Amino acid sequence: MLPIRKIVLIGAGNVGFHLGKRLYKKGFNIIQVFSRKEDKAKFLSKKIKAESTSDFSKIRANADLYIIAVGDNAIAEVARNLKENGIDNQLVVHTSGATASTVLKPYFNHYGVFYPLQTFRINSKPNFKTLPICIDAPNKKDLKRLKKLANKICLNVHQINDDERAILHVAAVFVNNFSNHFYSIAEDILDQNNLSLKLLFPLIRETANNIESSSPKDVQTGPAVRNDENTIKKHLQFLEKHPEYRTLYLVLSKSINAKFGNLK
Amino acid sequence: MLPIRKIVLIGAGNVGFHLGKRLYKKGFNIIQVFSRKEDKAKFLSKKIKAESTSDFSKIRANADLYIIAVGDNAIAEVARNLKENGIDNQLVVHTSGATASTVLKPYFNHYGVFYPLQTFRINSKPNFKTLPICIDAPNKKDLKRLKKLANKICLNVHQINDDERAILHVAAVFVNNFSNHFYSIAEDILDQNNLSLKLLFPLIRETANNIESSSPKDVQTGPAVRNDENTIKKHLQFLEKHPEYRTLYLVLSKSINAKFGNLK
Repeated sequence: MLPIRKIVLIGAGNVGFHLGKRLYKKGFNIIQVFSRKEDKAKFLSKKIKAESTSDFSKIRANADLYIIAVGDNAIAEVARNLKENGIDNQLVVHTSGATASTVLKPYFNHYGVFYPLQTFRINSKPNFKTLPICIDAPNKKDLKRLKKLANKICLNVHQINDDERAILHVAAVFVNNFSNHFYSIAEDILDQNNLSLKLLFPLIRETANNIESSSPKDVQTGPAVRNDENTIKKHLQFLEKHPEYRTLYLVLSKSINAKFGNLK
Repeated sequence: MLPIRKIVLIGAGNVGFHLGKRLYKKGFNIIQVFSRKEDKAKFLSKKIKAESTSDFSKIRANADLYIIAVGDNAIAEVARNLKENGIDNQLVVHTSGATASTVLKPYFNHYGVFYPLQTFRINSKPNFKTLPICIDAPNKKDLKRLKKLANKICLNVHQINDDERAILHVAAVFVNNFSNHFYSIAEDILDQNNLSLKLLFPLIRETANNIESSSPKDVQTGPAVRNDENTIKKHLQFLEKHPEYRTLYLVLSKSINAKFGNLK
């Protein structure tokens, strides 16, 4: 089994940036960073002592692993480009939660997925010790190689197949995208009344922490679950100024109420 | 200005329990704990060396402060009972985010609010240093006394009037109740597919942490904000098995999309 030493990273966005930095930190040799945006490629490549390019025809063919960390809709096109550059027998993975590994199948003999299940931002410092990396590959040796790689940069590695990863991704949308939208709504409501979202930071933190020791269904609180019509009525009255939030409040309250079987 | 030394605590639920313990720890004398449920009153009173009672007529009239930590719908009745017990010139506060302070006005000369803005559970260990305590009282001296008390048990004390507290409470429903419901939905979807919510703990934590350094609107990610119709379509297809969650997914995605002005 060939160990992975040389890596080409396609994409220097949030995922590529942090993955590149982590791999470099853990001793892997990122020989090249590709990004359509030259400045992004350069910015990352300097940090991890890699070559940078924004020209697909210059992508090096001598790496052990190609990591495609681009938007879902661009993965197939990147794969086709790699193939056209003579890359078809090396291991190629993408980092997406939403796209099946099989998108790579038409192009490569060795392919798989290397999905870090976390929300990344350029300025954040992701904790690679705790975040899960979900790997998969149809070829057992490829899977082993990916597992070895993942274990070197992370302590929370899981083999997750395409179906499972798609499900995880839907669930991630609920807990990340949708929860963040509620944080945003809270900020908006508070801002408009000269109150700061800071007042809710401890509550937000505790809400997230609570579910690590109890199932979320066992810690559900609030007017909807206890069928507190007075409070719900007051909240809906206040939200008349924010009809779009009022709709969400109603839909969510009904959903919570239905889940707990209190619906009148 | 009379300092608050002796306190009677009405209610030994999640809020009363933790508030009682904190006050006791910081040297206040809880002379009595009342709960309609005798076992609850006893359970807390033992921990904080207080007398316990479940008989309203036995509530002591010699305390400096009465803290009403009961459900919103019971506050007025408790106030009436206290008044009938001869308590009308002592300071009386409730701990509710959803109820105006004025609910106490018909009964007492000195009243106010002492609202710890946090989600409490018997088994959790709330961090009183960081959680906000929102206080208010119409009488300036009462307000000072409450402020002094709050500052002794907490480092994050704010004067918040009834209108502001009502707004905070609506916002809290979004970030706590509704986010937790999404954690619950994620758990349900994952459970049904033999996947663990544990895989999402790091993501949930990071989502909550992110907003302490950036506005939530600046860290909104996901298919809805980037108008990724392919991914949304896949998610909706998967959610056909869960029609109630599918509805929420649609409503939330539309709301996010509208907020970011991408609606087609």
